[in-house]
Parts: sequence; structure tokens; C-alpha cells
Amino acid sequence: MISDKMQGLVKNSSVIRAMFEEGKRLADIYGAENVYDFSLGNPNVPAPKEVNQAIIDIINEENPVYVHGYMSNSGYEDVRGRIAESLNRRFGTSFSTGNILMTVGAAGGMNAFFKAFINPGDEIITFAPYFGEYRAYASNVEANLVVIPPNTENFQPDIEALREAITPKTKAVIINTPNNPTGVIYSEATLRRIADVLECKQKEFNTVIAVFSDEPYRELAYDGIEVPYVTKYYNNTVVGYSYSKSLSLPGERIGYLVIPDEFDDAENVISACNVAIRILGFVNAPSLMQRVIGRCVDIDVSENVAVYNRNREALYNGLTEIGFECVKPEGAFYMFVKTPVDDKEFAERAKKYNILVVPGSSFGCPGYVRIAYCVAYETIINSMPQFRKLAEEIGGK
Amino acid sequence: MISDKMQGLVKNSSVIRAMFEEGKRLADIYGAENVYDFSLGNPNVPAPKEVNQAIIDIINEENPVYVHGYMSNSGYEDVRGRIAESLNRRFGTSFSTGNILMTVGAAGGMNAFFKAFINPGDEIITFAPYFGEYRAYASNVEANLVVIPPNTENFQPDIEALREAITPKTKAVIINTPNNPTGVIYSEATLRRIADVLECKQKEFNTVIAVFSDEPYRELAYDGIEVPYVTKYYNNTVVGYSYSKSLSLPGERIGYLVIPDEFDDAENVISACNVAIRILGFVNAPSLMQRVIGRCVDIDVSENVAVYNRNREALYNGLTEIGFECVKPEGAFYMFVKTPVDDKEFAERAKKYNILVVPGSSFGCPGYVRIAYCVAYETIINSMPQFRKLAEEIGGK
Repeated sequence: MISDKMQGLVKNSSVIRAMFEEGKRLADIYGAENVYDFSLGNPNVPAPKEVNQAIIDIINEENPVYVHGYMSNSGYEDVRGRIAESLNRRFGTSFSTGNILMTVGAAGGMNAFFKAFINPGDEIITFAPYFGEYRAYASNVEANLVVIPPNTENFQPDIEALREAITPKTKAVIINTPNNPTGVIYSEATLRRIADVLECKQKEFNTVIAVFSDEPYRELAYDGIEVPYVTKYYNNTVVGYSYSKSLSLPGERIGYLVIPDEFDDAENVISACNVAIRILGFVNAPSLMQRVIGRCVDIDVSENVAVYNRNREALYNGLTEIGFECVKPEGAFYMFVKTPVDDKEFAERAKKYNILVVPGSSFGCPGYVRIAYCVAYETIINSMPQFRKLAEEIGGK
Repeated sequence: MISDKMQGLVKNSSVIRAMFEEGKRLADIYGAENVYDFSLGNPNVPAPKEVNQAIIDIINEENPVYVHGYMSNSGYEDVRGRIAESLNRRFGTSFSTGNILMTVGAAGGMNAFFKAFINPGDEIITFAPYFGEYRAYASNVEANLVVIPPNTENFQPDIEALREAITPKTKAVIINTPNNPTGVIYSEATLRRIADVLECKQKEFNTVIAVFSDEPYRELAYDGIEVPYVTKYYNNTVVGYSYSKSLSLPGERIGYLVIPDEFDDAENVISACNVAIRILGFVNAPSLMQRVIGRCVDIDVSENVAVYNRNREALYNGLTEIGFECVKPEGAFYMFVKTPVDDKEFAERAKKYNILVVPGSSFGCPGYVRIAYCVAYETIINSMPQFRKLAEEIGGK
């Protein structure tokens, strides 16, 4: 009885659900502390205390009709203004209130922008490995997702492959830096090269090609590496941001879009996104959380980043010592580890050791697994003997 | 540069935005207390104090990683279970956790269900006057919205017209009771007649036709009138609920879907809705608000209903005394008033008297205007002399 498009999706989704269930099942048998669940990007670090204080203060201080009420589909103007100021201060940009649209997380933002900007049959390019949901989001607007094969040497984007993939139907390129699942960060030089290719192709085909910069991991960068702000390198950039990871609020569904004035036909694109937020059924980003962001836009998240960094070092050192191969992540909280056997088989055999990881096939990059290290430090330390047994079993296969 | 589908929508939306702006402009000139803005369904009654207390208690008592974290795309199981129990207690139904899916408001719920259930080219029927967004929601899944002309005698649904409108392509019928914009409530007898027609047509065409019961106004019923629970009359019913109006939380985007076990292929439909919530970019209903609902599922909202009832009486008595014609609303917080001149002209001329109302044309029913009485009581009382002047001007035209 369900719609045709849903048939395959429901089947796939039951695979993911099965992993959820497997985690629960293993925890029931062996105890949660003996299950090493690296399958989910659900931060284990709590939201900064300022966030919870802001919630309480808002409830005590602000007018409830306003706090819980409708506002413009793009969000409260004061909150959008404060985000613009914060970005300008941190990245030397010059956004104003009108450039910021509050969204139901980064996923809500990307879907709103696609609805506003993409026609059926358009092509959206992304680089493997990529967050699997991009395929569904492209399908929502009847666009074709064109995937650039992975550059497994260092997981930096393959610029020449990008050049070859662009056609007159190319309407958008999704980039995701810091990257899920590899943890790679695109350098300034890389962004300039991407921009050059796109500028050139826009002229060649007389088209407008948007870069959608999906940035839920922007603040999670290690070793002092800067994450360049993409709008500074390419005018037709839209940024999709989420507070899910930086403020540990994934369930709250709060983020924003940035559409700069320099974007082609910016005024109409902004209006169209505003309408898209409404007609897709989001209506607006959750109101209380918007007001929280208004108060917390500049809080220091370095403590949380330090926690993930400690995890990163422990996991990377532990796994490479055992003999696993992996590009050391510079950001986000994922490690993308080469598997000596088929990645699905690896993930399956890891379960015997109570280790849950996601096969790289889910990200368009077989031969690897994603290990999410937004877990307790102890989980990483205690998992190492298990990883070692797994390696021995597989090595001796 | 925006997508083709968006071109017209952006134009239309600027009309609505213009009304917003007009309200602000008039308030700046005449003072907010001298502007009678009846254009918005934004409750002016604050959320019950229990809601704000629940927010503070949850922040103080529950684990923040859990409160702000990811959960199943369908929501927290305990919250869904409590909603099921509450419905069972109040309406004699027998739902369980699995029948309830938490959604980003009723709009999010309807879009998720359509995505899960509707194929391109399918027909979705609704009765005029209807909430204009239904057209966009149908368009999101490439379905055609078929509108049954209004029964202006009493705004009850025209059952014979429904029978004639159903084709083999009919996949869903949207009903909305208590109704926006008329305030009409469908009786048990009406629901039985709708069910009979649909059962009969399902057999005739060997199809499944869903009733989508859009119920954000369920609790807002006056004079002791019961709002029958639709799943009891027709098996293939999905209920879309929102706490926007009953708990005055429209900005928080919190609601749920009910998909009963009796629905055809229920298990798959529920799974598909779960996936749809994810891939449409909602991911899940806002987490903190879900936990709030878990604590507030049974709070008494009669105080708020009494406020709206007082408004209803004052507005209805005032307007009919002046000579306006209108079916007295039994629920919701809207009055649908006949206009002696074209409805758009009426709305335009009303602005001269600082009165803002929405033309019935926006609801597929010209010749009427919608007056939202979820405003301060004083606004209604003070608007009466203005309505009188407007009536005199138009009468003397």
C-alpha cells in the first residue's frame, strides 16, 4: 500500500534499524558497558551548561506567547541577526539578518534549499564517501545524485573528476567539510580549485551552479586546523549549518541556512527558501530552540572539542598500532578505516566482538567502515582488545 | 534562478507577507492596540503553566544527552506510549506505542504520510473551504488536489459530491474537524456517511482510500459538543494531531500521527512514515518538546478553551447584531463571515478601519472572510465600532 518510492527505502531502512536493534540486543546480553557501539553520530558529550541555563532563563524571563509562538517562516529576526554578527566576527564575512534562515537542522535546510532551487531532472554532484541521506534528499526533488568516486589516497575531493562530471544539467555540488565519514577538512587551496572549476563551467554552459556546504561539523576541527568559510571563495554558495554536534542538540532539530547577497538572484532564492520551509511542512525551526541559540551563539565549545580530540587520538593510535589503516581525521568525530575484507563482512564479523560499525558501502565507498568516536573514552579503550581479536581472526582467515 | 514550482508560490506568498507587513505598518502608525489583526491562527493565550514547569523540570531532572539527543525517527517510545494511553482513555480506542509517530507539527505529519503513501498522479480530495496549504502538500508528492465545492448552507461536507468525485486514482481524503476556516464540527452521522461512501468506493475500484483527519483543533470545541474520533468510524484513517493550538505551542512544531492497526497494510505504512520523517529532513520531532508532551499529555486545557469561547460569543453576537451573516462556529477559533461584496475587496476595504482578515478565496471559498478570534478579548470588543463603520460604508456603496 505504500508509495512506490518508499518500497526500496523501507527495505534499506530496516537494515539500519536492525543495527539499532542489534545494539540493544547485545547490551541486554552482555551489559551496555561491554558493547562498543560506534555506529551512531549521536554526541555523548552533554550540551554545554549555558544551553540548559538559557532554556530555564527564557522560560522564566520571556513572554510565553512569543517564545512558543509563530514567527516568520525564516525565524526570529533578532536570532538571525545575532547569528549573522557572530559569523561576521569569526569569519570576516558581511552577512545581515536577511541572509540567515533558521531551519529544522541541517537536513531541513538542505531540503528547503533543494525545493527552492532544483528542478526535476537536474543533477546534484557530491564526492564519495558521502552521507547516504543526500541520495534521498536529491530524490525528494526528482534530481539525480551524481557521485564522484572516492580518492582513497587522502579522501580529498578529486577536482579533475568534478570538472568532468559537470554537465549543463548540474545545478548543485554538495560539499561536507569537516567530512562525514572521513573526518577530512578541505583546505583553502582545495576550495579555490573547486571554485575555479565551477566558475569556468558556469561560463561554459551559461548556468548557475550552487555549492551547498553542509557544515554540521564546522566547530569540530583538531590540531588548530582552520575550516575556511566557503562563501568567501565562491559566490554561489549556500551554507547549511546545524547545532546538533557543536552544541550536542541533535534531537532538537535546530540549524540555519546562509544565503549570501552575492548568490545569483539572491533575493528570490531567499524568498523561495522561506516558502519552501513553510510548504514542506517544517513551517519554522522550533521556536524555543531558536531563542536559545540567540543567547548561545557565541559560547565556547572548546571543552567538547577537547573530549572528541582525546577520543580521536586514542582510537587512531590504538587502531593503527593493531595494524589498521586509516587517514587520520582532522575534524568531525568519525574515522574511516580500511577493511582487510569486504566492508559488510567486516561489520558483520565485528559484531561477534560486540563492536558495531557502519560499512563504507553505505557512504558509496566499499572497503572501509565508519567508526563514530562520539562515545565515552572508556568505550574506546575497552574496545581495543576486541578490535585486536577481530584483526587476528580476519588476518588468519 | 529558483525552481519552476516555486515561481508562483513565491508570488502568492508575498501577498500573505504583505498582510503581515500591513499589520506592522498600521501598528506603527496607530498603535498596536488600535489595530484589529484577525488574520493569524497564532494563539494569544499562553501555554498552560504546566508546560513551562515541565520544561524546567526536564532540564533539571533528566539526562541532557538523552533529552537533546537522537531517538528513533518516530520519537521516544515512552512518550508515544503515553499518548496512546491518553487517547484510549479519552476516546475508547485501543492504540499502542507503535501506532503513534511523533511529528514536526500536524503539517510535518501530513507531509510524512503523503510521502509514504501517495504516488505521483494520485488524487487527494478535500472539502472547500480548506486550509490552503493542502494544495502545496499535495503538490510536494505530485498528487492532484481535488476540491469538493463548499456547501455554504452550513459548511458540512457534501457527501454526494464526495461520492461523485472519487475515482480509481483517489488515494486520500483530507478532513479537518473542527474546521479551519469555518469552525464547523463533523458529527458522528456525517463521519458514518463519509465512511460508507469510501467503503463502497474502495470495493467498487478495489483500492485503498485513506482518510487523513487533520485535527489541530480537536480540543477546541464549545457548548459541550463532542468531536468524534475518526478511526472508530473508518479503518483506513490516519490522524494528524498538533499541540499548536491546544497547548499554544505553534512555534515548537510538535504533533503526532496515529496509524491504527486496522489501517490496510498498517505495519508497512508505519515503517514508511518512519522513513519519510527521516528522509524529508525532519529526522524527528523536536526532542525536548516530545519529553514535555510526555509529561503534559493529560493536562486540563478547559481554561484556554473558555477564553476562546468568550471571544467567540462576543464576536458572533457583535457581528450578527451589525448584520453580518455567519454560521456560528462550534469549534476551532475561526469565524467564516459572508461578505456583501467580493471577499478580496472586503478585506482590502477593512484595512481602512485597521481590520485585518483573510479573504475566503485563500480557502477555495470566495464571498467570505476568515476572522481568527484567538486574539485579546479587548481586540474583539474594540473592533466592533470599526466593523460597524465598515458595514455602513459597504452597505451604502
